[in-house]
Amino acid sequence: MLTDVQKALDVLKERDIDRVYFVACGGSSSLMYASKYVLDREAETIDSDLYTSNEFVHRNPKKLNGKSLVILCSYYGKTPETVEAARFAREKGALTVSLTFDADSPLAQVSENVIVYHDQEDSNYVNESPAIMLELIFGLLAEREGNKKFNDILSSLENLRPILNKAKAETLAQAKEFAESYKDEKIIYTMGSGANYGIAYWFAICLLMEMQWIHSHAIHAGEYFHGPFEILDKDVPIIQLVGLDETRPLEERSLEFTQRYGERVIVIDAKNFDLTGVTESVKGYIAPLVLQTVLRQYAGELAEVRNHPLSTRRYMWKVPY
Amino acid sequence: MLTDVQKALDVLKERDIDRVYFVACGGSSSLMYASKYVLDREAETIDSDLYTSNEFVHRNPKKLNGKSLVILCSYYGKTPETVEAARFAREKGALTVSLTFDADSPLAQVSENVIVYHDQEDSNYVNESPAIMLELIFGLLAEREGNKKFNDILSSLENLRPILNKAKAETLAQAKEFAESYKDEKIIYTMGSGANYGIAYWFAICLLMEMQWIHSHAIHAGEYFHGPFEILDKDVPIIQLVGLDETRPLEERSLEFTQRYGERVIVIDAKNFDLTGVTESVKGYIAPLVLQTVLRQYAGELAEVRNHPLSTRRYMWKVPY
Repeated sequence: MLTDVQKALDVLKERDIDRVYFVACGGSSSLMYASKYVLDREAETIDSDLYTSNEFVHRNPKKLNGKSLVILCSYYGKTPETVEAARFAREKGALTVSLTFDADSPLAQVSENVIVYHDQEDSNYVNESPAIMLELIFGLLAEREGNKKFNDILSSLENLRPILNKAKAETLAQAKEFAESYKDEKIIYTMGSGANYGIAYWFAICLLMEMQWIHSHAIHAGEYFHGPFEILDKDVPIIQLVGLDETRPLEERSLEFTQRYGERVIVIDAKNFDLTGVTESVKGYIAPLVLQTVLRQYAGELAEVRNHPLSTRRYMWKVPY
Repeated sequence: MLTDVQKALDVLKERDIDRVYFVACGGSSSLMYASKYVLDREAETIDSDLYTSNEFVHRNPKKLNGKSLVILCSYYGKTPETVEAARFAREKGALTVSLTFDADSPLAQVSENVIVYHDQEDSNYVNESPAIMLELIFGLLAEREGNKKFNDILSSLENLRPILNKAKAETLAQAKEFAESYKDEKIIYTMGSGANYGIAYWFAICLLMEMQWIHSHAIHAGEYFHGPFEILDKDVPIIQLVGLDETRPLEERSLEFTQRYGERVIVIDAKNFDLTGVTESVKGYIAPLVLQTVLRQYAGELAEVRNHPLSTRRYMWKVPY
């Protein structure tokens, strides 16, 4: 565990916290969904909500106060809406803990507590933002409620890097096949539920829409049968995530239907990966991290074959908005 | 106010409620988002969460107990996931209040309290599900917290029918224009924030995907600049909602950008409608109802011109799933 995470947990020990707000934008926000899932399932005394930063500031939740922990995240620490959200949260007396790569960034400067993380593939996995959030949340639950899964999470995250590397190696061929087969698609849906929904959302808005200019929409596997499934035909591509949390039956059901009536289904099922080293009690919470690593490689291959680098932008950081 | 709503409020008087779960599927779920917005902004003692029914049952929130109010909704009262969710909630000791058209439906039978509503255009507006939810929520807030807006909501809803009729009449020409201009589009995005996001979501999944087989995705106006906006070009259609709640600046900002770089923008702005009779204090909460009425007419015209009736389905109610 990073020193910064331990320091944040020490601060949390001294504060009476009854709610957590997960606040960020885009990819950073999407990676918080799994932690909201954790709190919903585990927390006996702590409530939580998740908002995109600008919505949080304008919605101005009534219950935001000195007993709130606001967790924010921005890789470069410059996302204006998130910096503003941190400032706003502090004015309301909330305890702010911000995750960023840059210790000198605007976000770091306005936040009470900063956890500097490193999103590098060669570093120890526990230094990446979704992992840090799991440590923070389980640390909070352990401290306040005696939740017993903190050590399970820590050890599982410690063991995760080789698991991810293996999952990537095993799916490289599929990633290349996906890229070749789907490179001309104008729209590719994603689908998931529970702890994995945030990953479906991340892939839709960050990898497909933002970085490949391919239309997308992350369908919730439970909502599928109440509207979205009517667009399915043999030509509609859907990337279906299947995880290991309690909502797996939703994903299995939506997958079964999609495979029955569709012909362009890409399945990424966490049960196909060797998760030795991940404790059974937290597998459902860790699966999104594995799915994300595998999907990220799918995106890399797609970008390669389409000759559209993941770093290409026409608006982001280029024009005012 | 319906007798059923008053009865439910009387039951709520006798119960110590500290949280609300909004639970439903598809369109019924989407119409609850505005009530979640209300509770976030107004409630001092009541927490809330919103889930699609099957997610709710499987996620099995730890804090679901005898102090929970679970509000469910299903027009025919037969949606299996919602019936199951009501049963599940009752087993956990929660107080269930279900909204349905059919007093003898499975949902009505498993729920402790039932509010029978009528979604008819010729009826008094206060009998439709989003209106009932506002009455329930503000009634709860008035009872538990002395919230002063209950009467404002009731009177505004009483005055709403003529306002909606006028908004429809004033936008019929635009609806026909929209239908003619967008009838061949393969994808149409929707966008909104705050109290209106649920309406953007409703239009995307129920009217476009389910009832017209047109691809869609409801983009959150605050998330737009953190991924989705990169797909914008002069050919991408976006229906932008602009409401009257605190998040209007988000919608204005996303609209300004879309109008600058796009050429297929459909704007529905609540400020363009005469809301005389709606109290200032609750205009932001009522605006979604107006936007929804206007949009519903847009969908009707689109279905007409495309010769694809809104009632057409290939899977829903036709095949097992």
